[in-house]
Amino acid sequence: MTGILQDRTVQRCIEDCLHCYRTCWSMAFSDNLQRGGAHAEPGHLSLMLNCAQLCETTARFMLSASTLHTELCALCAKVCGACAQSCAQLEGMEACEAACRACAQSCREVAGFELPGTFTIDQLPTTGVQGGPPRQGIMG
Amino acid sequence: MTGILQDRTVQRCIEDCLHCYRTCWSMAFSDNLQRGGAHAEPGHLSLMLNCAQLCETTARFMLSASTLHTELCALCAKVCGACAQSCAQLEGMEACEAACRACAQSCREVAGFELPGTFTIDQLPTTGVQGGPPRQGIMG
Amino acid sequence: MTGILQDRTVQRCIEDCLHCYRTCWSMAFSDNLQRGGAHAEPGHLSLMLNCAQLCETTARFMLSASTLHTELCALCAKVCGACAQSCAQLEGMEACEAACRACAQSCREVAGFELPGTFTIDQLPTTGVQGGPPRQGIMG
Amino acid sequence: MTGILQDRTVQRCIEDCLHCYRTCWSMAFSDNLQRGGAHAEPGHLSLMLNCAQLCETTARFMLSASTLHTELCALCAKVCGACAQSCAQLEGMEACEAACRACAQSCREVAGFELPGTFTIDQLPTTGVQGGPPRQGIMG
Repeated sequence: MTGILQDRTVQRCIEDCLHCYRTCWSMAFSDNLQRGGAHAEPGHLSLMLNCAQLCETTARFMLSASTLHTELCALCAKVCGACAQSCAQLEGMEACEAACRACAQSCREVAGFELPGTFTIDQLPTTGVQGGPPRQGIMG
Repeated sequence: MTGILQDRTVQRCIEDCLHCYRTCWSMAFSDNLQRGGAHAEPGHLSLMLNCAQLCETTARFMLSASTLHTELCALCAKVCGACAQSCAQLEGMEACEAACRACAQSCREVAGFELPGTFTIDQLPTTGVQGGPPRQGIMG
Repeated sequence: MTGILQDRTVQRCIEDCLHCYRTCWSMAFSDNLQRGGAHAEPGHLSLMLNCAQLCETTARFMLSASTLHTELCALCAKVCGACAQSCAQLEGMEACEAACRACAQSCREVAGFELPGTFTIDQLPTTGVQGGPPRQGIMG
Repeated sequence: MTGILQDRTVQRCIEDCLHCYRTCWSMAFSDNLQRGGAHAEPGHLSLMLNCAQLCETTARFMLSASTLHTELCALCAKVCGACAQSCAQLEGMEACEAACRACAQSCREVAGFELPGTFTIDQLPTTGVQGGPPRQGIMG
Protein backbone atom coordinates (compact mmCIF):
# COMPACT_ATOMS: atom_id res chain seq x y z
CA MET A 1 0.00 0.00 0.00
CA THR A 2 1.47 3.29 -1.03
CA GLY A 3 0.99 7.01 -0.90
CA ILE A 4 -2.11 8.66 0.45
CA LEU A 5 -3.72 5.39 1.55
CA GLN A 6 -1.22 5.18 4.41
CA ASP A 7 -2.45 8.52 5.75
CA ARG A 8 -4.82 8.08 8.69
CA THR A 9 -6.79 11.20 7.81
CA VAL A 10 -7.38 9.79 4.35
CA GLN A 11 -8.31 6.39 5.75
CA ARG A 12 -10.95 7.92 8.01
CA CYS A 13 -12.22 10.09 5.20
CA ILE A 14 -12.74 7.02 2.99
CA GLU A 15 -14.69 5.39 5.84
CA ASP A 16 -16.81 8.49 6.37
CA CYS A 17 -17.46 8.95 2.65
CA LEU A 18 -18.62 5.37 2.22
CA HIS A 19 -20.75 5.58 5.36
CA CYS A 20 -22.35 8.80 4.15
CA TYR A 21 -22.92 7.29 0.69
CA ARG A 22 -24.76 4.26 2.05
CA THR A 23 -26.74 6.27 4.62
CA CYS A 24 -27.93 8.92 2.17
CA TRP A 25 -28.67 6.41 -0.57
CA SER A 26 -30.57 3.93 1.59
CA MET A 27 -32.52 6.55 3.54
CA ALA A 28 -33.58 8.21 0.28
CA PHE A 29 -35.26 4.97 -0.73
CA SER A 30 -36.32 3.50 2.60
CA ASP A 31 -37.44 6.63 4.40
CA ASN A 32 -37.88 9.63 2.14
CA LEU A 33 -39.77 8.02 -0.69
CA GLN A 34 -41.93 6.07 1.78
CA ARG A 35 -42.89 9.18 3.75
CA GLY A 36 -43.55 11.36 0.72
CA GLY A 37 -44.34 15.07 1.17
CA ALA A 38 -41.40 17.28 2.06
CA HIS A 39 -39.20 14.21 2.46
CA ALA A 40 -39.69 13.34 -1.22
CA GLU A 41 -39.54 16.91 -2.51
CA PRO A 42 -37.45 16.70 -5.72
CA GLY A 43 -34.85 19.26 -4.68
CA HIS A 44 -34.20 17.48 -1.39
CA LEU A 45 -34.20 13.98 -2.83
CA SER A 46 -31.92 15.01 -5.67
CA LEU A 47 -29.57 16.55 -3.12
CA MET A 48 -29.48 13.33 -1.06
CA LEU A 49 -28.83 11.09 -4.05
CA ASN A 50 -26.23 13.42 -5.54
CA CYS A 51 -24.55 13.74 -2.15
CA ALA A 52 -24.39 9.93 -1.97
CA GLN A 53 -22.98 9.75 -5.48
CA LEU A 54 -20.33 12.38 -4.83
CA CYS A 55 -19.27 10.70 -1.57
CA GLU A 56 -18.82 7.43 -3.41
CA THR A 57 -16.75 9.09 -6.15
CA THR A 58 -14.66 10.97 -3.59
CA ALA A 59 -13.89 7.69 -1.78
CA ARG A 60 -13.00 6.13 -5.12
CA PHE A 61 -10.53 8.92 -5.94
CA MET A 62 -8.75 8.30 -2.65
CA LEU A 63 -8.86 4.52 -3.09
CA SER A 64 -7.17 4.88 -6.46
CA ALA A 65 -4.41 6.99 -4.95
CA SER A 66 -5.36 9.98 -7.04
CA THR A 67 -3.48 13.19 -6.48
CA LEU A 68 -6.57 15.15 -7.43
CA HIS A 69 -8.56 14.15 -4.38
CA THR A 70 -8.10 17.29 -2.27
CA GLU A 71 -10.26 19.53 -4.44
CA LEU A 72 -12.87 16.82 -4.75
CA CYS A 73 -12.85 16.51 -0.95
CA ALA A 74 -13.37 20.26 -0.65
CA LEU A 75 -16.39 20.09 -2.95
CA CYS A 76 -17.70 16.96 -1.22
CA ALA A 77 -17.53 18.78 2.12
CA LYS A 78 -19.66 21.54 0.64
CA VAL A 79 -22.30 19.21 -0.78
CA CYS A 80 -22.41 17.18 2.46
CA GLY A 81 -22.85 20.42 4.39
CA ALA A 82 -25.79 21.41 2.19
CA CYS A 83 -27.33 17.94 2.56
CA ALA A 84 -26.91 18.02 6.34
CA GLN A 85 -28.66 21.34 6.54
CA SER A 86 -31.45 20.23 4.26
CA CYS A 87 -31.96 17.07 6.38
CA ALA A 88 -31.95 19.13 9.58
CA GLN A 89 -35.21 20.73 8.48
CA LEU A 90 -37.02 17.38 8.26
CA GLU A 91 -38.11 14.94 10.93
CA GLY A 92 -36.41 11.60 11.34
CA MET A 93 -33.37 12.44 9.22
CA GLU A 94 -30.92 12.61 12.12
CA ALA A 95 -28.86 9.64 10.93
CA CYS A 96 -28.40 11.17 7.49
CA GLU A 97 -27.61 14.59 8.92
CA ALA A 98 -24.99 13.07 11.26
CA ALA A 99 -23.37 11.05 8.47
CA CYS A 100 -23.19 14.16 6.28
CA ARG A 101 -21.68 16.29 9.03
CA ALA A 102 -19.04 13.67 9.87
CA CYS A 103 -18.16 13.25 6.19
CA ALA A 104 -17.98 17.01 5.65
CA GLN A 105 -15.58 17.32 8.58
CA SER A 106 -13.32 14.49 7.35
CA CYS A 107 -13.32 15.91 3.83
CA ARG A 108 -12.38 19.36 5.10
CA GLU A 109 -9.44 17.83 6.98
CA VAL A 110 -8.18 16.03 3.89
CA ALA A 111 -8.74 19.16 1.83
CA GLY A 112 -6.48 20.98 4.22
CA PHE A 113 -8.78 23.24 6.12
CA GLU A 114 -10.96 22.78 9.17
CA LEU A 115 -13.48 25.57 9.07
CA PRO A 116 -16.70 25.15 11.04
CA GLY A 117 -18.18 25.41 7.63
CA THR A 118 -21.81 24.50 7.06
CA PHE A 119 -23.98 26.64 4.87
CA THR A 120 -26.42 29.09 6.29
CA ILE A 121 -29.88 28.94 4.80
CA ASP A 122 -29.10 31.85 2.53
CA GLN A 123 -26.16 30.03 1.06
CA LEU A 124 -28.08 26.88 0.16
CA PRO A 125 -28.17 26.55 -3.60
CA THR A 126 -31.41 27.22 -5.38
CA THR A 127 -33.21 24.21 -6.78
CA GLY A 128 -33.45 25.58 -10.30
CA VAL A 129 -36.83 23.89 -10.66
CA GLN A 130 -39.40 26.16 -12.26
CA GLY A 131 -42.30 26.66 -9.91
CA GLY A 132 -40.59 24.49 -7.34
CA PRO A 133 -39.22 25.35 -3.94
CA PRO A 134 -36.67 28.17 -4.04
CA ARG A 135 -33.91 26.27 -2.32
CA GLN A 136 -32.65 22.72 -1.90
CA GLY A 137 -34.73 21.09 0.77
CA ILE A 138 -36.78 24.13 1.66
CA MET A 139 -40.49 23.59 1.23
CA GLY A 140 -42.32 26.39 2.98
CA MET B 1 -36.04 1.42 7.48
CA THR B 2 -38.11 -1.09 5.61
CA GLY B 3 -38.00 -4.32 3.71
CA ILE B 4 -34.80 -6.13 2.90
CA LEU B 5 -32.57 -3.67 4.78
CA GLN B 6 -33.86 -5.12 8.06
CA ASP B 7 -32.56 -8.55 7.07
CA ARG B 8 -29.28 -9.39 8.79
CA THR B 9 -28.07 -11.48 5.88
CA VAL B 10 -28.60 -8.52 3.58
CA GLN B 11 -26.90 -6.15 6.02
CA ARG B 12 -23.81 -8.35 6.16
CA CYS B 13 -23.84 -8.75 2.38
CA ILE B 14 -23.83 -4.94 1.94
CA GLU B 15 -20.85 -4.74 4.32
CA ASP B 16 -18.99 -7.48 2.48
CA CYS B 17 -19.75 -6.02 -0.95
CA LEU B 18 -18.47 -2.57 0.04
CA HIS B 19 -15.40 -4.09 1.69
CA CYS B 20 -14.66 -6.15 -1.42
CA TYR B 21 -15.21 -3.09 -3.63
CA ARG B 22 -12.71 -0.96 -1.74
CA THR B 23 -10.16 -3.76 -1.36
CA CYS B 24 -10.18 -4.75 -5.04
CA TRP B 25 -10.22 -1.16 -6.26
CA SER B 26 -7.44 0.12 -4.01
CA MET B 27 -5.19 -2.93 -4.43
CA ALA B 28 -5.52 -2.68 -8.20
CA PHE B 29 -3.99 0.80 -8.04
CA SER B 30 -1.70 0.54 -5.04
CA ASP B 31 -0.33 -2.96 -5.51
CA ASN B 32 -1.01 -4.42 -8.94
CA LEU B 33 -0.10 -1.44 -11.10
CA GLN B 34 2.96 -0.76 -8.95
CA ARG B 35 4.25 -4.32 -9.22
CA GLY B 36 3.59 -4.68 -12.92
CA GLY B 37 4.12 -8.04 -14.65
CA ALA B 38 1.49 -10.67 -13.98
CA HIS B 39 -0.11 -8.41 -11.40
CA ALA B 40 -0.87 -5.80 -14.07
CA GLU B 41 -1.83 -8.27 -16.79
CA PRO B 42 -4.89 -6.72 -18.51
CA GLY B 43 -7.18 -9.71 -18.01
CA HIS B 44 -6.45 -9.85 -14.31
CA LEU B 45 -6.64 -6.10 -13.72
CA SER B 46 -9.87 -5.82 -15.69
CA LEU B 47 -11.30 -8.63 -13.56
CA MET B 48 -10.33 -6.86 -10.33
CA LEU B 49 -11.77 -3.51 -11.38
CA ASN B 50 -14.96 -5.05 -12.77
CA CYS B 51 -15.33 -7.14 -9.64
CA ALA B 52 -15.04 -3.94 -7.57
CA GLN B 53 -17.58 -2.20 -9.78
CA LEU B 54 -20.08 -5.06 -9.60
CA CYS B 55 -19.74 -5.30 -5.81
CA GLU B 56 -20.50 -1.59 -5.52
CA THR B 57 -23.54 -1.91 -7.77
CA THR B 58 -24.77 -4.98 -5.92
CA ALA B 59 -24.53 -3.10 -2.60
CA ARG B 60 -26.39 -0.19 -4.19
CA PHE B 61 -29.25 -2.44 -5.32
CA MET B 62 -29.67 -3.69 -1.77
CA LEU B 63 -29.36 -0.19 -0.31
CA SER B 64 -32.17 0.98 -2.58
CA ALA B 65 -34.39 -1.84 -1.41
CA SER B 66 -34.58 -3.31 -4.87
CA THR B 67 -36.44 -6.56 -5.32
CA LEU B 68 -34.09 -7.48 -8.13
CA HIS B 69 -31.05 -7.93 -5.94
CA THR B 70 -31.03 -11.72 -5.62
CA GLU B 71 -30.02 -12.38 -9.21
CA LEU B 72 -27.41 -9.64 -9.06
CA CYS B 73 -26.05 -11.24 -5.87
CA ALA B 74 -25.85 -14.59 -7.64
CA LEU B 75 -23.84 -13.02 -10.46
CA CYS B 76 -21.68 -11.04 -8.03
CA ALA B 77 -20.85 -14.27 -6.19
CA LYS B 78 -19.67 -15.74 -9.47
CA VAL B 79 -17.48 -12.77 -10.42
CA CYS B 80 -16.02 -12.59 -6.89
CA GLY B 81 -15.25 -16.29 -7.08
CA ALA B 82 -13.40 -15.77 -10.36
CA CYS B 83 -11.49 -12.82 -8.94
CA ALA B 84 -10.54 -14.78 -5.80
CA GLN B 85 -9.17 -17.61 -7.88
CA SER B 86 -7.28 -15.24 -10.15
CA CYS B 87 -5.75 -13.51 -7.10
CA ALA B 88 -4.81 -16.85 -5.55
CA GLN B 89 -2.34 -17.39 -8.36
CA LEU B 90 -0.41 -14.21 -7.55
CA GLU B 91 1.81 -13.29 -4.61
CA GLY B 92 0.69 -10.76 -2.06
CA MET B 93 -2.97 -10.74 -3.09
CA GLU B 94 -4.23 -12.55 0.03
CA ALA B 95 -6.28 -9.57 1.26
CA CYS B 96 -8.07 -9.26 -2.06
CA GLU B 97 -8.64 -12.99 -2.31
CA ALA B 98 -10.10 -13.07 1.22
CA ALA B 99 -12.40 -10.10 0.55
CA CYS B 100 -13.64 -11.74 -2.64
CA ARG B 101 -14.29 -15.09 -0.95
CA ALA B 102 -16.19 -13.48 1.93
CA CYS B 103 -18.26 -11.40 -0.48
CA ALA B 104 -18.99 -14.40 -2.68
CA GLN B 105 -20.22 -16.33 0.35
CA SER B 106 -22.48 -13.50 1.56
CA CYS B 107 -23.86 -13.01 -1.94
CA ARG B 108 -24.65 -16.69 -2.27
CA GLU B 109 -26.55 -16.58 1.01
CA VAL B 110 -28.64 -13.62 -0.13
CA ALA B 111 -29.18 -15.27 -3.50
CA GLY B 112 -30.59 -18.26 -1.68
CA PHE B 113 -28.01 -20.92 -2.09
CA GLU B 114 -24.83 -21.80 -0.26
CA LEU B 115 -22.80 -23.90 -2.60
CA PRO B 116 -19.06 -24.23 -2.01
CA GLY B 117 -18.92 -22.60 -5.35
CA THR B 118 -15.67 -21.17 -6.70
CA PHE B 119 -14.67 -21.77 -10.28
CA THR B 120 -12.14 -24.35 -11.23
CA ILE B 121 -9.44 -23.17 -13.57
CA ASP B 122 -11.26 -24.64 -16.55
CA GLN B 123 -14.32 -22.62 -15.76
CA LEU B 124 -12.56 -19.30 -15.57
CA PRO B 125 -13.74 -17.13 -18.45
CA THR B 126 -11.41 -16.51 -21.33
CA THR B 127 -9.94 -13.03 -21.54
CA GLY B 128 -11.07 -12.44 -25.10
CA VAL B 129 -7.90 -10.50 -25.75
CA GLN B 130 -6.27 -11.42 -29.04
CA GLY B 131 -2.80 -12.72 -28.45
CA GLY B 132 -3.29 -12.29 -24.72
CA PRO B 133 -3.44 -14.85 -21.95
CA PRO B 134 -6.13 -17.48 -22.53
CA ARG B 135 -7.95 -16.96 -19.27
CA GLN B 136 -8.64 -14.21 -16.76
CA GLY B 137 -5.60 -13.90 -14.56
CA ILE B 138 -3.67 -16.80 -16.05
CA MET B 139 -0.32 -15.80 -17.48
CA GLY B 140 1.68 -18.95 -18.10
CA MET C 1 -8.91 -1.41 -29.60
CA THR C 2 -9.17 -5.10 -28.93
CA GLY C 3 -11.56 -7.91 -28.26
CA ILE C 4 -15.25 -7.39 -27.71
CA LEU C 5 -15.13 -3.64 -28.37
CA GLN C 6 -14.66 -4.37 -32.07
CA ASP C 7 -17.94 -6.28 -32.14
CA ARG C 8 -20.77 -4.19 -33.63
CA THR C 9 -23.39 -5.86 -31.44
CA VAL C 10 -21.38 -4.91 -28.37
CA GLN C 11 -20.88 -1.35 -29.64
CA ARG C 12 -24.62 -0.88 -30.12
CA CYS C 13 -25.31 -2.43 -26.74
CA ILE C 14 -22.97 0.06 -25.04
CA GLU C 15 -24.82 2.91 -26.82
CA ASP C 16 -28.21 1.54 -25.79
CA CYS C 17 -27.11 0.93 -22.19
CA LEU C 18 -25.78 4.48 -21.80
CA HIS C 19 -28.89 5.93 -23.47
CA CYS C 20 -31.14 3.92 -21.17
CA TYR C 21 -29.07 4.95 -18.14
CA ARG C 22 -29.38 8.65 -18.87
CA THR C 23 -33.06 8.45 -19.85
CA CYS C 24 -34.12 6.50 -16.74
CA TRP C 25 -31.98 8.57 -14.43
CA SER C 26 -33.00 11.99 -15.75
CA MET C 27 -36.70 11.15 -16.10
CA ALA C 28 -36.75 9.84 -12.52
CA PHE C 29 -35.71 13.29 -11.32
CA SER C 30 -37.24 15.58 -13.93
CA ASP C 31 -40.56 13.85 -14.48
CA ASN C 32 -41.39 11.25 -11.85
CA LEU C 33 -40.47 13.19 -8.74
CA GLN C 34 -42.09 16.33 -10.14
CA ARG C 35 -45.38 14.57 -10.91
CA GLY C 36 -45.57 12.67 -7.64
CA GLY C 37 -48.33 10.09 -7.10
CA ALA C 38 -47.91 6.79 -8.93
CA HIS C 39 -44.92 8.22 -10.79
CA ALA C 40 -43.03 8.65 -7.52
CA GLU C 41 -44.21 5.40 -5.93
CA PRO C 42 -41.09 3.98 -4.18
CA GLY C 43 -41.18 0.61 -5.94
CA HIS C 44 -41.36 2.22 -9.36
CA LEU C 45 -38.78 4.91 -8.66
CA SER C 46 -36.39 2.40 -7.14
CA LEU C 47 -36.80 0.24 -10.24
CA MET C 48 -36.02 3.17 -12.55
CA LEU C 49 -32.91 4.23 -10.63
CA ASN C 50 -31.64 0.69 -10.24
CA CYS C 51 -32.28 0.04 -13.91
CA ALA C 52 -30.23 3.15 -14.73
CA GLN C 53 -27.46 2.01 -12.42
CA LEU C 54 -27.34 -1.51 -13.84
CA CYS C 55 -27.28 -0.19 -17.43
CA GLU C 56 -24.31 2.02 -16.55
CA THR C 57 -22.46 -0.89 -14.92
CA THR C 58 -23.24 -3.19 -17.85
CA ALA C 59 -21.83 -0.61 -20.29
CA ARG C 60 -18.76 -0.29 -18.07
CA PHE C 61 -18.14 -4.05 -18.12
CA MET C 62 -18.17 -4.00 -21.91
CA LEU C 63 -16.01 -0.87 -22.05
CA SER C 64 -13.40 -2.60 -19.89
CA ALA C 65 -13.34 -5.59 -22.20
CA SER C 66 -14.59 -7.89 -19.50
CA THR C 67 -15.28 -11.48 -20.40
CA LEU C 68 -18.01 -11.59 -17.79
CA HIS C 69 -20.33 -9.22 -19.62
CA THR C 70 -22.69 -11.75 -21.17
CA GLU C 71 -24.35 -12.78 -17.91
CA LEU C 72 -24.57 -9.17 -16.81
CA CYS C 73 -26.23 -8.36 -20.15
CA ALA C 74 -28.74 -11.15 -19.59
CA LEU C 75 -29.63 -9.74 -16.18
CA CYS C 76 -29.70 -6.16 -17.51
CA ALA C 77 -32.16 -7.27 -20.21
CA LYS C 78 -34.41 -8.66 -17.49
CA VAL C 79 -34.32 -5.52 -15.34
CA CYS C 80 -34.87 -3.27 -18.39
CA GLY C 81 -37.83 -5.44 -19.35
CA ALA C 82 -39.33 -5.01 -15.88
CA CYS C 83 -38.74 -1.24 -15.99
CA ALA C 84 -40.30 -0.96 -19.45
CA GLN C 85 -43.41 -2.77 -18.28
CA SER C 86 -43.63 -0.68 -15.14
CA CYS C 87 -43.31 2.52 -17.20
CA ALA C 88 -45.97 1.30 -19.66
CA GLN C 89 -48.53 1.57 -16.90
CA LEU C 90 -47.90 5.27 -16.35
CA GLU C 91 -48.64 8.29 -18.51
CA GLY C 92 -45.86 10.21 -20.19
CA MET C 93 -43.19 7.55 -19.69
CA GLU C 94 -42.97 6.54 -23.34
CA ALA C 95 -39.37 7.73 -23.76
CA CYS C 96 -38.22 5.69 -20.79
CA GLU C 97 -40.19 2.64 -21.87
CA ALA C 98 -38.68 2.86 -25.38
CA ALA C 99 -35.14 3.24 -24.05
CA CYS C 100 -35.62 0.23 -21.78
CA ARG C 101 -37.04 -1.94 -24.55
CA ALA C 102 -34.20 -1.04 -26.93
CA CYS C 103 -31.61 -1.73 -24.26
CA ALA C 104 -33.23 -5.02 -23.30
CA GLN C 105 -33.14 -6.12 -26.94
CA SER C 106 -29.46 -5.17 -27.39
CA CYS C 107 -28.53 -6.88 -24.14
CA ARG C 108 -30.33 -10.07 -25.16
CA GLU C 109 -28.38 -10.08 -28.43
CA VAL C 110 -25.05 -9.73 -26.63
CA ALA C 111 -26.11 -12.36 -24.12
CA GLY C 112 -26.69 -14.71 -27.00
CA PHE C 113 -30.42 -15.09 -27.13
CA GLU C 114 -33.21 -13.11 -28.70
CA LEU C 115 -36.33 -14.14 -26.88
CA PRO C 116 -39.35 -11.83 -27.01
CA GLY C 117 -38.74 -11.62 -23.34
CA THR C 118 -40.52 -8.99 -21.30
CA PHE C 119 -42.11 -9.94 -18.05
CA THR C 120 -45.82 -10.46 -17.76
CA ILE C 121 -47.44 -8.67 -14.85
CA ASP C 122 -47.39 -11.85 -12.80
CA GLN C 123 -43.66 -12.14 -13.21
CA LEU C 124 -42.87 -8.65 -12.02
CA PRO C 125 -40.92 -8.86 -8.80
CA THR C 126 -42.65 -7.96 -5.59
CA THR C 127 -41.56 -4.70 -4.01
CA GLY C 128 -40.78 -6.22 -0.65
CA VAL C 129 -42.02 -3.05 1.01
CA GLN C 130 -44.24 -3.72 4.01
CA GLY C 131 -47.63 -2.19 3.43
CA GLY C 132 -46.51 -0.96 0.04
CA PRO C 133 -47.68 -1.93 -3.40
CA PRO C 134 -47.41 -5.65 -4.09
CA ARG C 135 -45.32 -5.34 -7.21
CA GLN C 136 -42.73 -3.03 -8.76
CA GLY C 137 -44.63 -0.20 -10.38
CA ILE C 138 -48.11 -1.47 -9.64
CA MET C 139 -50.16 0.92 -7.57
CA GLY C 140 -53.78 -0.25 -7.67
CA MET D 1 -38.27 17.95 -18.54
CA THR D 2 -37.44 20.84 -16.28
CA GLY D 3 -34.70 23.19 -15.22
CA ILE D 4 -31.13 22.82 -16.35
CA LEU D 5 -31.83 19.88 -18.66
CA GLN D 6 -33.51 22.28 -21.09
CA ASP D 7 -30.30 24.27 -21.39
CA ARG D 8 -28.41 23.45 -24.58
CA THR D 9 -25.03 24.10 -22.96
CA VAL D 10 -25.90 21.57 -20.28
CA GLN D 11 -27.16 19.07 -22.83
CA ARG D 12 -23.91 19.24 -24.78
CA CYS D 13 -21.90 19.00 -21.58
CA ILE D 14 -23.73 15.79 -20.61
CA GLU D 15 -22.91 14.37 -24.06
CA ASP D 16 -19.27 15.38 -23.79
CA CYS D 17 -18.93 14.04 -20.23
CA LEU D 18 -20.38 10.65 -21.18
CA HIS D 19 -18.23 10.51 -24.32
CA CYS D 20 -15.11 11.34 -22.31
CA TYR D 21 -16.06 8.77 -19.67
CA ARG D 22 -16.40 5.94 -22.18
CA THR D 23 -13.31 6.96 -24.16
CA CYS D 24 -11.01 7.23 -21.12
CA TRP D 25 -12.39 4.09 -19.51
CA SER D 26 -12.24 1.88 -22.59
CA MET D 27 -8.84 3.12 -23.78
CA ALA D 28 -7.39 2.50 -20.31
CA PHE D 29 -8.28 -1.16 -20.66
CA SER D 30 -7.99 -1.73 -24.39
CA ASP D 31 -4.94 0.37 -25.17
CA ASN D 32 -2.97 1.41 -22.12
CA LEU D 33 -2.91 -1.88 -20.25
CA GLN D 34 -2.19 -3.78 -23.48
CA ARG D 35 0.75 -1.54 -24.40
CA GLY D 36 2.27 -1.47 -20.94
CA GLY D 37 5.26 0.77 -20.22
CA ALA D 38 4.55 4.47 -19.92
CA HIS D 39 0.97 3.85 -21.03
CA ALA D 40 0.34 1.70 -17.97
CA GLU D 41 2.32 3.85 -15.54
CA PRO D 42 0.18 3.96 -12.34
CA GLY D 43 -0.04 7.73 -12.13
CA HIS D 44 -1.25 8.02 -15.71
CA LEU D 45 -3.66 5.10 -15.55
CA SER D 46 -5.10 6.31 -12.26
CA LEU D 47 -5.61 9.72 -13.82
CA MET D 48 -7.44 8.24 -16.82
CA LEU D 49 -9.75 6.07 -14.70
CA ASN D 50 -10.44 8.85 -12.20
CA CYS D 51 -11.09 11.27 -15.04
CA ALA D 52 -13.59 8.78 -16.47
CA GLN D 53 -15.23 8.36 -13.09
CA LEU D 54 -15.52 12.10 -12.46
CA CYS D 55 -16.97 12.70 -15.95
CA GLU D 56 -19.63 10.08 -15.27
CA THR D 57 -20.50 11.63 -11.90
CA THR D 58 -20.58 15.12 -13.39
CA ALA D 59 -23.00 13.95 -16.08
CA ARG D 60 -25.11 12.28 -13.39
CA PHE D 61 -25.33 15.51 -11.37
CA MET D 62 -26.66 17.32 -14.42
CA LEU D 63 -29.02 14.46 -15.29
CA SER D 64 -30.52 14.65 -11.82
CA ALA D 65 -31.10 18.37 -12.18
CA SER D 66 -28.74 19.17 -9.33
CA THR D 67 -28.09 22.79 -8.53
CA LEU D 68 -24.60 21.86 -7.39
CA HIS D 69 -23.32 20.93 -10.81
CA THR D 70 -21.42 24.12 -11.66
CA GLU D 71 -18.63 23.58 -9.16
CA LEU D 72 -18.39 19.94 -10.11
CA CYS D 73 -18.12 21.00 -13.76
CA ALA D 74 -15.32 23.41 -12.84
CA LEU D 75 -13.42 20.59 -11.13
CA CYS D 76 -14.16 18.16 -13.97
CA ALA D 77 -12.73 20.67 -16.44
CA LYS D 78 -9.54 20.76 -14.40
CA VAL D 79 -9.17 16.96 -14.19
CA CYS D 80 -9.97 16.57 -17.90
CA GLY D 81 -7.34 19.20 -18.67
CA ALA D 82 -4.75 17.29 -16.65
CA CYS D 83 -5.71 14.02 -18.37
CA ALA D 84 -5.52 15.61 -21.81
CA GLN D 85 -2.03 16.90 -21.11
CA SER D 86 -0.91 13.56 -19.69
CA CYS D 87 -2.24 11.78 -22.80
CA ALA D 88 -0.55 14.29 -25.11
CA GLN D 89 2.81 12.96 -23.95
CA LEU D 90 2.05 9.42 -25.09
CA GLU D 91 1.67 7.92 -28.55
CA GLY D 92 -1.70 6.82 -29.83
CA MET D 93 -3.75 8.61 -27.19
CA GLU D 94 -5.15 11.27 -29.54
CA ALA D 95 -8.75 10.11 -29.15
CA CYS D 96 -8.56 10.29 -25.39
CA GLU D 97 -6.83 13.66 -25.47
CA ALA D 98 -9.49 15.04 -27.83
CA ALA D 99 -12.37 13.72 -25.69
CA CYS D 100 -10.80 15.26 -22.59
CA ARG D 101 -10.27 18.64 -24.24
CA ALA D 102 -13.84 18.76 -25.57
CA CYS D 103 -15.24 17.78 -22.19
CA ALA D 104 -13.06 20.34 -20.39
CA GLN D 105 -14.33 23.06 -22.73
CA SER D 106 -18.02 22.10 -22.23
CA CYS D 107 -17.54 21.91 -18.49
CA ARG D 108 -15.94 25.34 -18.39
CA GLU D 109 -18.91 26.77 -20.28
CA VAL D 110 -21.40 25.26 -17.85
CA ALA D 111 -19.26 26.41 -14.93
CA GLY D 112 -19.51 29.92 -16.28
CA PHE D 113 -16.07 30.68 -17.54
CA GLU D 114 -14.25 30.00 -20.79
CA LEU D 115 -10.61 30.28 -19.99
CA PRO D 116 -8.09 28.63 -22.31
CA GLY D 117 -7.35 26.65 -19.23
CA THR D 118 -5.22 23.52 -19.49
CA PHE D 119 -2.48 22.90 -17.00
CA THR D 120 1.11 23.54 -17.84
CA ILE D 121 3.48 20.75 -16.95
CA ASP D 122 4.49 22.50 -13.77
CA GLN D 123 0.92 22.60 -12.62
CA LEU D 124 0.26 18.91 -13.08
CA PRO D 125 -0.33 17.35 -9.68
CA THR D 126 2.34 15.13 -8.23
CA THR D 127 1.56 11.43 -8.17
CA GLY D 128 2.23 11.01 -4.48
CA VAL D 129 3.68 7.58 -5.16
CA GLN D 130 6.90 6.94 -3.26
CA GLY D 131 9.69 6.24 -5.70
CA GLY D 132 7.30 6.72 -8.59
CA PRO D 133 7.21 9.35 -11.28
CA PRO D 134 7.06 12.87 -9.89
CA ARG D 135 3.95 13.92 -11.75
CA GLN D 136 0.77 12.40 -13.14
CA GLY D 137 1.65 10.85 -16.47
CA ILE D 138 5.26 11.98 -16.55
CA MET D 139 7.70 9.11 -16.82
CA GLY D 140 11.09 10.53 -17.73
